[in-house]
Amino acid sequence: MAAPGAVHEVLAALPLVDHHCHGAVTADLDAGRFESLITEGAAWPGVSPFDSPVGVAVRRHCAPLLDLPRHAPPADYLARRSALGWQEVHRRFLTASGAEVFCVDTGYAPHPLTTPAELAAAAGAAAREVVRLEQLAEAVAARGVEAGEYAAVLRTAAEEAVRRPDVVAVKSVAAYRTGFALAPERPADAEVTRAARHWLARGGRLTDPVLVRHLLWTAVDLGLPLQLHTGFGDADVTLHRADPALLTDWLHRTAGTIPVLLLHCWPYHRQAAYLATVFEQVYLDVGLALHYTGPARCRAVLEEALEITPFRKLLYSSDAYGVAEFHHLGALCFRQGLADLLQDRVDADELSLADALRIAAWTGRDNARRVYGPLVSEPARDPSGRPARKV
Amino acid sequence: MAAPGAVHEVLAALPLVDHHCHGAVTADLDAGRFESLITEGAAWPGVSPFDSPVGVAVRRHCAPLLDLPRHAPPADYLARRSALGWQEVHRRFLTASGAEVFCVDTGYAPHPLTTPAELAAAAGAAAREVVRLEQLAEAVAARGVEAGEYAAVLRTAAEEAVRRPDVVAVKSVAAYRTGFALAPERPADAEVTRAARHWLARGGRLTDPVLVRHLLWTAVDLGLPLQLHTGFGDADVTLHRADPALLTDWLHRTAGTIPVLLLHCWPYHRQAAYLATVFEQVYLDVGLALHYTGPARCRAVLEEALEITPFRKLLYSSDAYGVAEFHHLGALCFRQGLADLLQDRVDADELSLADALRIAAWTGRDNARRVYGPLVSEPARDPSGRPARKV
Amino acid sequence: MAAPGAVHEVLAALPLVDHHCHGAVTADLDAGRFESLITEGAAWPGVSPFDSPVGVAVRRHCAPLLDLPRHAPPADYLARRSALGWQEVHRRFLTASGAEVFCVDTGYAPHPLTTPAELAAAAGAAAREVVRLEQLAEAVAARGVEAGEYAAVLRTAAEEAVRRPDVVAVKSVAAYRTGFALAPERPADAEVTRAARHWLARGGRLTDPVLVRHLLWTAVDLGLPLQLHTGFGDADVTLHRADPALLTDWLHRTAGTIPVLLLHCWPYHRQAAYLATVFEQVYLDVGLALHYTGPARCRAVLEEALEITPFRKLLYSSDAYGVAEFHHLGALCFRQGLADLLQDRVDADELSLADALRIAAWTGRDNARRVYGPLVSEPARDPSGRPARKV
Repeated sequence: MAAPGAVHEVLAALPLVDHHCHGAVTADLDAGRFESLITEGAAWPGVSPFDSPVGVAVRRHCAPLLDLPRHAPPADYLARRSALGWQEVHRRFLTASGAEVFCVDTGYAPHPLTTPAELAAAAGAAAREVVRLEQLAEAVAARGVEAGEYAAVLRTAAEEAVRRPDVVAVKSVAAYRTGFALAPERPADAEVTRAARHWLARGGRLTDPVLVRHLLWTAVDLGLPLQLHTGFGDADVTLHRADPALLTDWLHRTAGTIPVLLLHCWPYHRQAAYLATVFEQVYLDVGLALHYTGPARCRAVLEEALEITPFRKLLYSSDAYGVAEFHHLGALCFRQGLADLLQDRVDADELSLADALRIAAWTGRDNARRVYGPLVSEPARDPSGRPARKV
Repeated sequence: MAAPGAVHEVLAALPLVDHHCHGAVTADLDAGRFESLITEGAAWPGVSPFDSPVGVAVRRHCAPLLDLPRHAPPADYLARRSALGWQEVHRRFLTASGAEVFCVDTGYAPHPLTTPAELAAAAGAAAREVVRLEQLAEAVAARGVEAGEYAAVLRTAAEEAVRRPDVVAVKSVAAYRTGFALAPERPADAEVTRAARHWLARGGRLTDPVLVRHLLWTAVDLGLPLQLHTGFGDADVTLHRADPALLTDWLHRTAGTIPVLLLHCWPYHRQAAYLATVFEQVYLDVGLALHYTGPARCRAVLEEALEITPFRKLLYSSDAYGVAEFHHLGALCFRQGLADLLQDRVDADELSLADALRIAAWTGRDNARRVYGPLVSEPARDPSGRPARKV
Repeated sequence: MAAPGAVHEVLAALPLVDHHCHGAVTADLDAGRFESLITEGAAWPGVSPFDSPVGVAVRRHCAPLLDLPRHAPPADYLARRSALGWQEVHRRFLTASGAEVFCVDTGYAPHPLTTPAELAAAAGAAAREVVRLEQLAEAVAARGVEAGEYAAVLRTAAEEAVRRPDVVAVKSVAAYRTGFALAPERPADAEVTRAARHWLARGGRLTDPVLVRHLLWTAVDLGLPLQLHTGFGDADVTLHRADPALLTDWLHRTAGTIPVLLLHCWPYHRQAAYLATVFEQVYLDVGLALHYTGPARCRAVLEEALEITPFRKLLYSSDAYGVAEFHHLGALCFRQGLADLLQDRVDADELSLADALRIAAWTGRDNARRVYGPLVSEPARDPSGRPARKV
C-alpha cells in the first residue's frame, strides 16, 4: 500500500458527492436484522455475515466510531450499536462519511428508511432525490389504468415526479427485471399497449421486456440523467445479463440525449470503462463493490475501473442501503483506494501531484456536479465542527 | 510479496483437505508423456511445456524435492525423476503436499492412475471418493438399457455408487459436454426417455442437453454435494459456456437442496464468488488455476476469488491430475498465496491476526469438513516424521 | 514497482518486432485533430482527451522527447509538436520505439498516413505489410463483380495481394463487422453467392455474416498467419461479441492450418490466454491496451495475459495508429511492464535470470520471427547512432 501523502490528505478532506445511495433503517436493529443488512446474500444458519470482507471492514473501520477497539467482536459491536441507539449511530457514520450531498434512490424501501432530508440532516449535508422508474410504473398500475392509457399516464406521472426541485436523476433496475439483452429500439405504441394489457391483467412486478425497454426510452424523453444498476447485486440479478456491454446498441441509438450512469458494474467494470471511454454520454462508478470488497481490495477494483477511463467519467457512490455504516465505509474505501493508487503514481513520477489532486476532486465530487448540475445551493452546514466545506 | 509472518507459519503447517483431485500415473514417464501431462493444451513440436508458468513452477518448486537445484533444466529434471522411479516421486510430492485428505474424482482415467487408497498411502493421508455422473451414465449405456428404463437404471446405479462409505460427493462435467446454458427445470420423464432413445441408438459420449440436465437433477435427488467443473480446462471446454453465472436459474430452483461446489472457475472466479455470496448452497475453489498460474500469480487469483466472498465459501483443491508434482504445487501455491494476502492485511491492520488464522484454517480445511462431513476418522498417519496432524 | 535490474536493461535495449501497427498521419495536427487521435472515443466538448490515462502518459513520456519537461501542459505539448513539424516528430518517436520491424496494417486509412516504407525509414527500421481482408473484399465489390464470381475474384485478388514480398500476414476485423458468434463451418459456395448478391446490390461496408465467415476461411486457404482484432476498440465494436472465446468452434475446425494472432484482447485477455494455452495455432498480444492503460497499468494487464500462457504465445504489438507517440508509448509500456514483472520474479527467486531474459526476447521479438518467418534481411539501419541491432 502507498505511503500516505498529499493525495491522501486532500482526499480525506474532500466533501464527496455520493451520487447514488439509499436511506438507513430508522429503527434499532437486532443481530439478525443487522446481519441480514450487511450481506447481498442473506444471513444463513451457521454462517455469520461478519465473516466476510465487508464484515471484517465493519469491525475494523466502524467499531472505532462506536468507541470500540478496532476488530471488535461482532457481539460487542452489536451491543454497543444498540446501546447508542440508531439516531446516534446514523449521526456518527453519516457525518464521518464527509459527503456534502447524498443523491438518494427512494424507490426501494422494504424497511422503514430515512427520507433524503433525514439522511441529510443526520450528516450535516444536503440531499437530492433519484426517482426509480419501475416503482413509478408499478404505482401507475396499482392505481388502475387502461392498457391503452398506460404510456400516457406513466409519462405524466414521471414528468410530475421529476418536476420536484430535489430530483436530479431517474434510475432503472432493468438489470434485475430482464437484463440488458433487450431490443434496442424504442417500442411502438401498439407493442406497449399489448404488453401493458398482459401485465395489468397478470399483476405483480414489472418484468415484461417491452415495458422495461419502454421505461428506458421514457428516461430519454424525460431528459434527466439515467442511473442504471449493472453487475453485482443480490440473488435477484442474473449476473451475466447485467453486463453493461449488452447496452451497446441502445447506447448508439440514444447518443446525444441523456447521460447514462452505470452503477456498481463489478465484475464488469472494465466493460463499463470501455463504454465510458467510447460513448460521450456514459459514466460509471464502482459503488457497492467499494464496501463489499473492503479496504483490502477496493483499490484493485478502482484501478481496473480507471484503467482506460477518461477522468471525467468516474463518479463516486456508496450505494449504501439500510445501515449507515455503509455510507461511511463506501466513502472511506473510495478515499483510501483512490488516494493509494494516485499517490503511488505521483511517487513513481507517472503523474504530477497537481493532476492527481485534480483527478481526486473530479472523481469524488466535480464529475457529479457536472452531470447533475448544482447540487448544493449554500455552504453545507457542518455541525461536527470541521472546517466548512466550500462548494 | 508479503514478508513471511505468523500466517505463513500456520498455513505451512496446516493439514489441507484437497477436496477435488485425481490420481497420479502409476508408471515412469518419458519426456513426451511427462510434458503432455503438465499442460492443459498438448505438447506441441518446438514448444516445450516447461516454457510456461507451470513449467517454471515445476523447475523452481519441485526440483528441490528431487534433490536438484532450483530452476534445474528440464532434461535434468526428467532424468532425475526417472532415476528415482514413480513410486518414490509420488511419495515425495504427495507427502510434501501436507494434505490430510484427498477427495479423488475417479471418473477420468485415460492413463493408469493411483487409486484413492494408493494416493492416500503414498501421502500418509486419507482419501475419499468423488463419483463422476457422466461416467456412471455412460457405463449404464454401455451395459445396455432400454430407453424407457434409462432413468430408473441410472438412478439405481447412482444410488449404489454413492452408497460406498468413502464416497463424499458427486461431480458433473456438464461444462464440457453442453455448457451451462441449459434449461433450468427438471426434464420431464418423457423428455428423458426420448433423449435416451436417441443417445443409446447413436452411442458415444453423453452430450445430449436433456440428459446432462437430468444428471444435474439426479445429483439433487442423491442428496450429496455436487462438484461442478467451471471455467478453465482443456480444449474440450468452450470457455464462455462454462461461465458459472449461466447456472443462476438452476441454482434458484435447487436452493435448499444440495451444496454445489464450483471448481476452478478461472477466469470467471469473480462470477463464482458472486454466486457463493448470494446463494447459500454455493461454494467455490480456484483449483487447477493455482498451479497453472503458479506462485507468481496465484495470490492475485485468490484475491479476486475472495474479493466479496464469505470466508465459509472458499475451499482448497489442487485439481491435480497425472503427476504428483501438481498435488504438491497446488498446495504450495495455495499456502503461499493465501498467506501472502492475509499477512499483508494483518500487517496493514486491516485484519486481526486471530481472524487471519481462522480464515486460513477454514479455507484450507474446515470449510471442506463442514460441507462433506467428517473426512478423517483417526489422526492421519504421518510417515515423514512431521508432528502428527491433529484433526 | 520493481527496482530496475538486469531484465530492465536487456528489455530496454531489445530491438522489438511490433507485429501489428498502423501508419502515422503525414501532416501537422492542430489541437482538435491530435486530441481526436489519442482517444478510442472522440474529442468531446469540455472533456480534454489529455485527461485520461493515455493523455497522462503522453505528457509524461512523450513530452521529454520533444524537449519539454515531464507532465508538460497540453497546450505546450501541442505547440512544441507543431513547431517541430510532423517529420521530426515521427523521427523522434519512431526511433525511440527501438523497433527493428513494424508489421503495418495498411487497410485502415481515414487519414493520410505514412506508408510502411516511410514508417520504417523514419524509424531506421524495417517494415512488413499486413493485408486487411475486409478492405480487399470491398475493393473487389467496388470494382464491380457478378455475385457468382465474387468468391473466385476475391480469392485471386487475395492471392495477388499476399504475393508481394513484404506481406507477412492478413488481418480481419470480423469483430467489428459481425462479432465472433458466427457459424464455424466453411460456408457453401451457394451461400456465398447468395450473400454476395445481396451485398453487391445493397452496397456499403461488408457486414454480412456469411461473407465475413467466408473471409476467415479465405485466410485459411491463403496459408498466411491471420491477425484478428478482438476486444477493445472504438465504439464501432460491440465488446462482448468480440470476446475471442466465441471463436472456439472455428479454432477447432481450423486446427493444423494457419497461425491465428489475437490482437488487443483486453478485457478478454484471460480468455485469449486460455485459447493460446490449449490451441497450438493461437497467439495473443495486448496491443492498444498497452498505451491506453499506460505505464501505471500495463504491467497488470501483461500479468493477466501471461497468467497461464506458454511463453511462446505472447507477442508484442503497439497497434499504434495516427500519432507516432503511440509507436513509442506501446514499446515503452511493454518494455517497462514486462521488465517489472519478470524482474520481480527473479528477485523473489521464482524465475532464473536466464529464463527471464529468454522470455523477454521471445515475447518482444523472437515469437514474431517464429510465426512470420525472417523479418529483417540485413542489419537494420540505425541513423540515431545507437549500436546496430543485430538480428
